Amino acid sequence: MVAIRVQQLLGGDRRTLAKAITLVESQLPVHQQQAQRLLSQLLLHTGKSLRLGISGTPGVGKSTFIEAFGQYLLDQGLRIAVLAVDPSSPIAGGSILGDKTRMEQLSREPNAYIRPSPAAGALGGVAQTTRESLLLCEAAGFDVVLVETVGVGQSEYQVANMVDFFLLLMQPNTGDELQGIKKGILELADAIVVNKADGNLASFAERDCGQYQQVLGLVTRTGFWQPKVVTCSALENRGIDRIWSMVVEYRDQARTQGEFDRKRAQQNTNWMMHLFEQELLTKAMGRPGFTEQQQDLKNQVATGRITPLVAARALLELK
Amino acid sequence: MVAIRVQQLLGGDRRTLAKAITLVESQLPVHQQQAQRLLSQLLLHTGKSLRLGISGTPGVGKSTFIEAFGQYLLDQGLRIAVLAVDPSSPIAGGSILGDKTRMEQLSREPNAYIRPSPAAGALGGVAQTTRESLLLCEAAGFDVVLVETVGVGQSEYQVANMVDFFLLLMQPNTGDELQGIKKGILELADAIVVNKADGNLASFAERDCGQYQQVLGLVTRTGFWQPKVVTCSALENRGIDRIWSMVVEYRDQARTQGEFDRKRAQQNTNWMMHLFEQELLTKAMGRPGFTEQQQDLKNQVATGRITPLVAARALLELK
Repeated sequence: MVAIRVQQLLGGDRRTLAKAITLVESQLPVHQQQAQRLLSQLLLHTGKSLRLGISGTPGVGKSTFIEAFGQYLLDQGLRIAVLAVDPSSPIAGGSILGDKTRMEQLSREPNAYIRPSPAAGALGGVAQTTRESLLLCEAAGFDVVLVETVGVGQSEYQVANMVDFFLLLMQPNTGDELQGIKKGILELADAIVVNKADGNLASFAERDCGQYQQVLGLVTRTGFWQPKVVTCSALENRGIDRIWSMVVEYRDQARTQGEFDRKRAQQNTNWMMHLFEQELLTKAMGRPGFTEQQQDLKNQVATGRITPLVAARALLELK
Repeated sequence: MVAIRVQQLLGGDRRTLAKAITLVESQLPVHQQQAQRLLSQLLLHTGKSLRLGISGTPGVGKSTFIEAFGQYLLDQGLRIAVLAVDPSSPIAGGSILGDKTRMEQLSREPNAYIRPSPAAGALGGVAQTTRESLLLCEAAGFDVVLVETVGVGQSEYQVANMVDFFLLLMQPNTGDELQGIKKGILELADAIVVNKADGNLASFAERDCGQYQQVLGLVTRTGFWQPKVVTCSALENRGIDRIWSMVVEYRDQARTQGEFDRKRAQQNTNWMMHLFEQELLTKAMGRPGFTEQQQDLKNQVATGRITPLVAARALLELK
């Protein structure tokens, strides 16, 4: 058992918050049970932050952007938390460089809390842990929670499904063509931010901005929000205010239309069913002999000896 | 029991083929068992056709395209089968207009076989039925099987996952901007065909062609094939030969690189696991009281009274 003082957490104490997140990240069954009890206790105090997803491949300047954007939010009197989702992180509890070092300024601010990426966990993995950490940050009274991810594997989908607004960071391309965008990401982005619109890159950023606008216009969206494309220079601190205004505009419109709460409720029930399916599958695949039979049947299907349906049924009937 | 003469089917008799497909589409358990036995018998005779997916929203001229394209293939001495996947079809065994009427010329050709969309079935639904019908067409010696779909729901994904090459049909847009493309479809298309490149629309088709090329270049693809964009006029029978050359070029390259068989094996094992997961879920959700408890838990999750994880576990433990 870990001693977590609920009143201190609700009061915004960062040390208590850090301990609670460590509890949520723990793989020990006794810790997991305690974490679930703690979350149930805190549930009424969650849901009050604005949840912002920030994605972009390494090199687009995510850390510099979050430093500048976070500082801007602090200047507005807001308390901010930064959670990282990095499925590529090989070390338990943080990425190689260490997020503390990456966001040096921000980490020294009393109204900011920065948490590195957890190691991949069991049920639901990093996504589950990050969802729960997000709730803890909300209970601790943070106004804006930034969930940052490098675009590895399914991480953008997972992050997009736990935030209110999803920002995709890009850097200007100096060639003739736009940078390749990972499959499916266009459908997730509520906004594309072309960072590094400074110095020699400024004109490229503007050109890319127009081209992304065209591309985004191509994708059929449901809902009231038409994704926007903006430029900024995190390095020179320009355009940061515009990005925040855009997010606020989204939030206000979404609230007026009832979309804000509806989206969150939908995210939660989707996640519930996702966990249910995942656990069901884990149980079925954990039966003795499953892996061997699966491989054998896959070989037979791949070489055309049996049909996929016959194989699927054989796998189901495994006792 | 339905009498199916295997030798007649293997000999390419269209009546026997039609009966076999009806068997595969039947919901009766006794028919389903017989269908699986038949498919197992025929499995060695399948896999020899070129499988082509054709998608496009209503109005792009799919029927006219398939008439022209099919006729071109017949002229090359090939036997062709056309299967439709239309999940929106409200009538068992066919779409409202009736596919026979839609492709009048083709349906009179002795070397063509046209089959309307089946009604949504049980396990795997239309996708499962169409996969099995495709195998039957191959056993009956058809050289090219066209699988046609209107882009409703998940149907493009299902079709893309059962064919060797996936064509997306578009029509020229006379406005300033390209037509909206359904979410995720760009990643599926091996080629985009801008149809109706005739009369007043010819110049719009050429302009769109260039713009789609740009957009396709944006999406990161894995594999050797760079998706192509071409124009054609099915009405005036222009550009049809170029489309077939492109498909043949793909097939030859894919075969040389071993990609052709690898893709099919992958499609089959993916489908096997998909059916396994689907059946597992169907069984779990079929337990008495499941629906009521699920709804109750969803409500509690949506209103923030319990966490998704707690709800998922409660649903799993339902006896």
